[in-house]
Amino acid sequence: MLLYNSAVSGNCYKVRLLLAQLGLGYETVEVDVVDRSNRKELLGELNPALRVPTLVLDDGRPLAESNAILWYFGDGTSFVPDDAYERAHVLQWLFFEQYSHEPSIAVARFLKTYSGEPERFERQKERLLAGGYSALDAMEKRLGGAPFLVGGRYSIADVSLYAYTHVADEGGFELDGYPAIRDWLARVAAQPGHVPIDA
Amino acid sequence: MLLYNSAVSGNCYKVRLLLAQLGLGYETVEVDVVDRSNRKELLGELNPALRVPTLVLDDGRPLAESNAILWYFGDGTSFVPDDAYERAHVLQWLFFEQYSHEPSIAVARFLKTYSGEPERFERQKERLLAGGYSALDAMEKRLGGAPFLVGGRYSIADVSLYAYTHVADEGGFELDGYPAIRDWLARVAAQPGHVPIDA
Repeated sequence: MLLYNSAVSGNCYKVRLLLAQLGLGYETVEVDVVDRSNRKELLGELNPALRVPTLVLDDGRPLAESNAILWYFGDGTSFVPDDAYERAHVLQWLFFEQYSHEPSIAVARFLKTYSGEPERFERQKERLLAGGYSALDAMEKRLGGAPFLVGGRYSIADVSLYAYTHVADEGGFELDGYPAIRDWLARVAAQPGHVPIDA
Repeated sequence: MLLYNSAVSGNCYKVRLLLAQLGLGYETVEVDVVDRSNRKELLGELNPALRVPTLVLDDGRPLAESNAILWYFGDGTSFVPDDAYERAHVLQWLFFEQYSHEPSIAVARFLKTYSGEPERFERQKERLLAGGYSALDAMEKRLGGAPFLVGGRYSIADVSLYAYTHVADEGGFELDGYPAIRDWLARVAAQPGHVPIDA
């Protein structure tokens, strides 16, 4: 398999983390996340959204959207539950991640730490921090009563939300007031086969 | 079942459309999408993201995120394919919808037509239209060579993308340059059991 990858992207890290935990090998093509001028040439025929990660399976078929890739490899393993309600609940957290979490926390992190233009972070800081802390509040509430996001077990919902939550400090977020999230981050990092984002 | 609903929300319409096509009944509680002051009281224990649609199943368990609800009811029917790659491809379009389509097209529509503060649309118009037309470009490319988004058959991917695309004009988008999308909109509206957004 071939993974169009960015070493600093949490969306790509989700895929690398799950594939490592499943023991699946792949090659990577590194894609620039600041200079996007070659995206159409590189990804135009593979992913209509021109985002990374984009994966090309061994048979040549492309698959895109980090959380769809997690589902493809996780379904049928311990990373996706069997029960229909729990499966939908995993998807609920994956959609929460892309709609309510990533656009604030990942974008804040990118602008503040990786864009080379930290003034863009400063201009949008108020909105990004408010949105990100709302997402963290929702996670804290859930994780205050449960060891993992769905069904009491580590799943792709945890893989997905871990990716940008564990580096939220790079986006200006402080987790001091989120003890349940901090405990959960440690539980996720202690799972068998865990690899860090910079592995 | 009880659906926390907004009559004007495309996210809620997705759920109403699929449930109608599956012949499943439900009751609704109408939730204000402009005055959000009662959201925590109304949805706090049901949906960490405090969004509509939120569904309460007959056994009292809540389910949230429009596309996760579509999956819950669609899986096992003709609305979700059996093949693992096609299933992931449906999810790819659902995540595309929430990340690349809804935040531009639905937000433009809400601000321009439903917020009561159209000046907020004017302030963000350039960014919203650029993002929305990028999403429409991606759909046009796909639908230029296929009758439906995934596997040649009507699926929840079409239900999801139809919801805000067919009212994109309310967000200031013109579909004149998108013949494949216009043909697809007509195909979706001609499916058995179709109901309009204002049904």
